[in-house]
Amino acid sequence: MTVSPIEINSDLGESFGLLSFGHDRGLLEVIDAANIACGFHAGDPHVMAETVELAAAAGVSLGAHPGLPDLPGFGRRVMNMSPDEVRDIVVYQVGALAGFVADVDAHLGHVKPHGALYGMLGRDETLMRPVAELAARRGLRLFGMAGTAHQSAAEAAGAEFVSELYVDLNYRADGSLIIVRRPQATDPGAAADRVKRAIDTGRIAAEDGTSIPVEFSSICIHSDVPNCVDVARAVSAALADVGASAHAQPQK
Amino acid sequence: MTVSPIEINSDLGESFGLLSFGHDRGLLEVIDAANIACGFHAGDPHVMAETVELAAAAGVSLGAHPGLPDLPGFGRRVMNMSPDEVRDIVVYQVGALAGFVADVDAHLGHVKPHGALYGMLGRDETLMRPVAELAARRGLRLFGMAGTAHQSAAEAAGAEFVSELYVDLNYRADGSLIIVRRPQATDPGAAADRVKRAIDTGRIAAEDGTSIPVEFSSICIHSDVPNCVDVARAVSAALADVGASAHAQPQK
Amino acid sequence: MTVSPIEINSDLGESFGLLSFGHDRGLLEVIDAANIACGFHAGDPHVMAETVELAAAAGVSLGAHPGLPDLPGFGRRVMNMSPDEVRDIVVYQVGALAGFVADVDAHLGHVKPHGALYGMLGRDETLMRPVAELAARRGLRLFGMAGTAHQSAAEAAGAEFVSELYVDLNYRADGSLIIVRRPQATDPGAAADRVKRAIDTGRIAAEDGTSIPVEFSSICIHSDVPNCVDVARAVSAALADVGASAHAQPQK
Amino acid sequence: MTVSPIEINSDLGESFGLLSFGHDRGLLEVIDAANIACGFHAGDPHVMAETVELAAAAGVSLGAHPGLPDLPGFGRRVMNMSPDEVRDIVVYQVGALAGFVADVDAHLGHVKPHGALYGMLGRDETLMRPVAELAARRGLRLFGMAGTAHQSAAEAAGAEFVSELYVDLNYRADGSLIIVRRPQATDPGAAADRVKRAIDTGRIAAEDGTSIPVEFSSICIHSDVPNCVDVARAVSAALADVGASAHAQPQK
Repeated sequence: MTVSPIEINSDLGESFGLLSFGHDRGLLEVIDAANIACGFHAGDPHVMAETVELAAAAGVSLGAHPGLPDLPGFGRRVMNMSPDEVRDIVVYQVGALAGFVADVDAHLGHVKPHGALYGMLGRDETLMRPVAELAARRGLRLFGMAGTAHQSAAEAAGAEFVSELYVDLNYRADGSLIIVRRPQATDPGAAADRVKRAIDTGRIAAEDGTSIPVEFSSICIHSDVPNCVDVARAVSAALADVGASAHAQPQK
Repeated sequence: MTVSPIEINSDLGESFGLLSFGHDRGLLEVIDAANIACGFHAGDPHVMAETVELAAAAGVSLGAHPGLPDLPGFGRRVMNMSPDEVRDIVVYQVGALAGFVADVDAHLGHVKPHGALYGMLGRDETLMRPVAELAARRGLRLFGMAGTAHQSAAEAAGAEFVSELYVDLNYRADGSLIIVRRPQATDPGAAADRVKRAIDTGRIAAEDGTSIPVEFSSICIHSDVPNCVDVARAVSAALADVGASAHAQPQK
Repeated sequence: MTVSPIEINSDLGESFGLLSFGHDRGLLEVIDAANIACGFHAGDPHVMAETVELAAAAGVSLGAHPGLPDLPGFGRRVMNMSPDEVRDIVVYQVGALAGFVADVDAHLGHVKPHGALYGMLGRDETLMRPVAELAARRGLRLFGMAGTAHQSAAEAAGAEFVSELYVDLNYRADGSLIIVRRPQATDPGAAADRVKRAIDTGRIAAEDGTSIPVEFSSICIHSDVPNCVDVARAVSAALADVGASAHAQPQK
Repeated sequence: MTVSPIEINSDLGESFGLLSFGHDRGLLEVIDAANIACGFHAGDPHVMAETVELAAAAGVSLGAHPGLPDLPGFGRRVMNMSPDEVRDIVVYQVGALAGFVADVDAHLGHVKPHGALYGMLGRDETLMRPVAELAARRGLRLFGMAGTAHQSAAEAAGAEFVSELYVDLNYRADGSLIIVRRPQATDPGAAADRVKRAIDTGRIAAEDGTSIPVEFSSICIHSDVPNCVDVARAVSAALADVGASAHAQPQK
């Protein structure tokens, strides 16, 4: 049996000024796609420049990770925005990141909304539409949740859609993701098991134990849990085990 | 005698949220180049989207107008920045604006630093260099003051340089510009006279009366003085009088 | 018949940096209570200092007007906040304003949440409680909508509650206020009529024509509609007509 | 011989949102005075609430640590501010912190400007004056460098002045402090030696080896070097050795 390669993606570049955040260097040795913060929920111009340079050197797909304009809330507080406001903050942030990517002669490959914005867009296709249209115009792959407005808007706009599985967040029985302010440490073995079972059966266990269907071609691993590099390595090994690694070469 | 055409430029898009600023619509009927704020000293994503659309519709040259990260100070307070910090905030802002320009199928034509950043870069070629190099890489014309680090860095980097005359700010006897927090209303007739004399003689009067040489191919008119549209019209008429208008067609 | 005096209050100090907003000087000649922005949704330290000085000189009640941390959205976009986050942003803003009030030897008399925060707190007593408790601890009158969590939390906390009538916003048939991003100009005569009828009958007409009961001892007039000073004068005259003016002396 | 007690102070509360910074809990076991960030260069309302609570529980002097409005630069970039602007940002920040202090029934004891603002005020008495006057009005001790405008303005305004020694920053031969963007790790033994020699001889070695006089009644230890708690413990022990500890009781 042939299994399609599955990418691992992480949100990176979430440091700010002198304040460090995440485990970017460790993750970049393992992951396939970097979603880079654009200064609204985290990151700043200098952090973006550094992160783009690191990620380009690591050879991963470079993606924009636009968020709500809420630094103290880390973009994890839902805000009431109009579709035009969503469009404008996403155009702004994607453009800003594209500047840094151009300066290292690299290619901006994808976009993934961050945190509360991700959840808002998944629930409301009128909010999602301008982001999907931007992705289509710019030729960017769009990362999101299968079966939500992420996917329907992407398809309507003609943007390439990449569906995600989360290993460090819980799902509700209706398949929706429970976005929290601070992700908890995840057991690497449990993460690997979730991945293997999901590939094998197309299902995972929701928070209440219900078995729910999942569809994905990428796995997201948050960079802000202490053991995230171990989780990424365990997931990467699980993917290799089942012949679904997107990595061409063995990990260093 | 043939006189080279001289453009009029203005800083636009300096409204913020619900707070209006400037006289953008009136000026866009007269000017040739719009320097559009990028959200650091003024402007926000929605204002940028609107301003880009208006300016593109008016057919003027679209330019990025990056400033210091100082909204309450309107980018008019000098800050101690490293060359890398200057590069990163300018790459960020130019990229963000470029996104909006791409979305109206227009062309980003120039870049002009704002306020205190403009002054800082004119005095320090190490700070100016990354901006000049960015302009060269992006094929953007660079607006600045002749005879300063604006020009020397532009030439060193191979960026096309556009020298400016100011009609609503005073000059010191050494030729440097006196940047103030709030420009004062300017007499339109006096502005027109300054322009005609400058074109005729290559000289203007400094604040203390000294006659100083000036070199310019563009004239800047600030949008935040109450009568700025009248000043722009008077200057435009003066340019037409001496056959130096950059406008192909008569003003409406 | 004796009618209790009814105050007029306005949100002031919503300028920011060089960008002017509102009609503070005109309103201060008419109103009884100033709700002064504290830098999160509008205002900045310099604007706060100036506004406190003007309002103290005008002899009105000085109040803090804390908002959501959302300058570009003017605090008019609902954000998902926890009760602790609400408490902390309100303690911060009230404290900041209290500093300026102390420096003009004046007295901070009241607090009124701004915009989307006002609506959020009116709908959710768990969010309102920390604000009501702060008002009680500081001996501040608390402005809000009768019959909402504003009032119930104020009473539970032992804070003095001041109920408001709005003349430039519409009400739903259920008595809730329709908070908009940009209030529209209001006809001064219509505003005066609403006030007189409300005092006379205890009822006003909702947006759909339904007659709904209202209870109030203060009337809010927004400062960001062009004719707000005329509206304030008309309302003030209406209050004087029915003997409900809180002004001891005739208007200048 | 009796030696006056010497306090140890640290800048605390410099975390922001989800991003942690510093070693506040460890330092609070050793220090005597906490300078708490007020949200302009670092900190946010929630961090301030937590830090005030921790510091009050530790029994240290609670102080406001106002900074320049420059989060990405951590308040360590000099900005051109007018005396009125300095006054307004300091009144704002001190007031905001005072609100949190009042809510834990504690006492705001001192104020110390942060980073670049500290340096700017030490060099320019016109900028320092409004801060010294505020300290005098509020009855706050003012921390600063002996022999600079910190001290002269404090004395002119009638504010109690507390002079500081730095053990993790270098001095120039003229006695001025070299403020850096990121303090380096300091050898605890060297810090203790500097303190003992300074107490013994009234002199320390400047960066170039010159012996320069110092005068101090408090010692500042930065919280953002990895081994700062060890440095604080070494300095505390050195103070105890020479009978200059401000701690009434032995360290836990």
